[in-house]
Amino acid sequence: MSELRQNRITRDWVIMATERAGRPEAFSKQKRPAVTLPAYDPNCPFCPGNEHLSMLDTERIRQESTWKIRAVPNKYPALSATGERLRKTDGLNRSMTGVGVHEVIIEHPHHDMTMALLSVPDVAAILTMYRMRYSAIRKDPRVEAIVIFKNHGEGAGTSIVHPHSQIAATPIVPSQIRTRMEEAIRFVDDHGECLFCRTVREELEASIRVIVETEHFVAFHPYAALSPFHTWVFPKRHMPSFDDISDAEIVDLASTLKTFLAKLYHGLGNPDFNLSIRSIPTSDRNTEYFHWYMAIIPRVSKTAGFEMGSGMFINTVLPEESAAFLREIKSPD
Amino acid sequence: MSELRQNRITRDWVIMATERAGRPEAFSKQKRPAVTLPAYDPNCPFCPGNEHLSMLDTERIRQESTWKIRAVPNKYPALSATGERLRKTDGLNRSMTGVGVHEVIIEHPHHDMTMALLSVPDVAAILTMYRMRYSAIRKDPRVEAIVIFKNHGEGAGTSIVHPHSQIAATPIVPSQIRTRMEEAIRFVDDHGECLFCRTVREELEASIRVIVETEHFVAFHPYAALSPFHTWVFPKRHMPSFDDISDAEIVDLASTLKTFLAKLYHGLGNPDFNLSIRSIPTSDRNTEYFHWYMAIIPRVSKTAGFEMGSGMFINTVLPEESAAFLREIKSPD
Repeated sequence: MSELRQNRITRDWVIMATERAGRPEAFSKQKRPAVTLPAYDPNCPFCPGNEHLSMLDTERIRQESTWKIRAVPNKYPALSATGERLRKTDGLNRSMTGVGVHEVIIEHPHHDMTMALLSVPDVAAILTMYRMRYSAIRKDPRVEAIVIFKNHGEGAGTSIVHPHSQIAATPIVPSQIRTRMEEAIRFVDDHGECLFCRTVREELEASIRVIVETEHFVAFHPYAALSPFHTWVFPKRHMPSFDDISDAEIVDLASTLKTFLAKLYHGLGNPDFNLSIRSIPTSDRNTEYFHWYMAIIPRVSKTAGFEMGSGMFINTVLPEESAAFLREIKSPD
Repeated sequence: MSELRQNRITRDWVIMATERAGRPEAFSKQKRPAVTLPAYDPNCPFCPGNEHLSMLDTERIRQESTWKIRAVPNKYPALSATGERLRKTDGLNRSMTGVGVHEVIIEHPHHDMTMALLSVPDVAAILTMYRMRYSAIRKDPRVEAIVIFKNHGEGAGTSIVHPHSQIAATPIVPSQIRTRMEEAIRFVDDHGECLFCRTVREELEASIRVIVETEHFVAFHPYAALSPFHTWVFPKRHMPSFDDISDAEIVDLASTLKTFLAKLYHGLGNPDFNLSIRSIPTSDRNTEYFHWYMAIIPRVSKTAGFEMGSGMFINTVLPEESAAFLREIKSPD
């Protein structure tokens, strides 16, 4: 019989229907054929030499005579960098000007690079850029929430192969973050402790869903993982906002992330995935109830009408089994 | 500049970023090549003659010497029809036995049929089957919520081509439905009126997002449509639960639905879509605050890290424009 599990951070229930697909190994057979990309593509807007095809840098990390990492405004932004935040109401309908920030972070000069294969210092440099842009963007008074995300592969919604992340800052607090905050506040009211800190402590104690643990971070599958290999990366220290991260913690997160992504890359054959970092809304700081975290969702299964209609996800792999599988994967480097 | 709009039923904000894709006509060029399916496939478990490949009918609508529509338990159910509803708690972790109902409704004997091309009486017969199964399943005391849904096409998550819908009954109220209920109760508190009735009234008055209107139903794009061509079909009469629908309303809904789906079929070239019907939890009845409705989501765009990380959707087509486009589409029959 399947089992229902509740995600305590979102209160979503997930159906663990393991008869339907079975073992984590099954997903490793879906390995994509090895596409050999060139290190440089003359038509790629993010390759060195084509800087004129993208917007002017908002930030740049240099390396010798050239750049190592660039942050640039998105050429087709979902939100406009200029303009005022104005609300309008007409009957039930509420709208607001689409102001905010939408930037791209070009992670590496090489077209064919991917985070799983980078060195720890190179990943740390990308995370440092995330922090720099987060800190700068939060100063914009029109901004209420900042999300950093990465779409890896076409199945994850990207159209550009060159390794990049995105950062978006919205003029409202998205309801998904609002819901998590309300739940987290209620937990502090009931238990006098951060819900996320407690989750990390229980996961470390149980240890069966942990994949990578370092001094400051832990990567694990949530107890009620929404889909196969759904992963959370949490800082052990209580930090509401991504830009609270210290230099030492950045290096440690880079090591956790690189190790985890290399396991995905080698264990599942470079699957498409989405990565996102959720923080507390920018106008809140130093609260005891919210804790930033990173979610990684490999795109190895499809959602359909069941999920859309009910809001309940069906996961065909037990997180305990996929965690055991990933723990065993060794990276050749 | 893009515009943010709030969906008042879910409180989600959507970014209308129309510079990114533009006109509704653009989606009609994505027409799939016409695959001619056979009317009968000897390997299809839902084709007549292969009844032994599926489970025993829970309900059947007959036609002459054979069946016209069958309801059968899903052979690979996400929830088990037998067993007790038992909860377990271990620290933060909450689980429950995966009991409930998961059935398939085989909509037509012909392998190559699709709702958009059926006659109104044939669609009405399918909706009658929905109501029969809904009424029967709600009697199961382990069931808290029932969702009826349909995945049309591979991109919408179906693996079987033969026209079918599904009905799932869960032993808990999914948090997505709980959130809508809370919002709806608050609206009645504030305004003394059902939020959904008010939405229908305002949409009919504005009329710019309406696609099909009949005596008892209206199909329109929500003001804050989550994705291109996202559609709601609402009964005009206040009805909390799908099985409150009358015989006359079933015929009228069949006509609305068939007209709408034919517009999608001919206007966008038979796109993949998900359809779902949300009702009030089964233990509530006759409340003033909830109103069942149908959502139809054509799979013409992809969600990615932005949506996953922020919970905010980006829609590249204004619902006013896609509604105008669909209103003009004439069905050849």
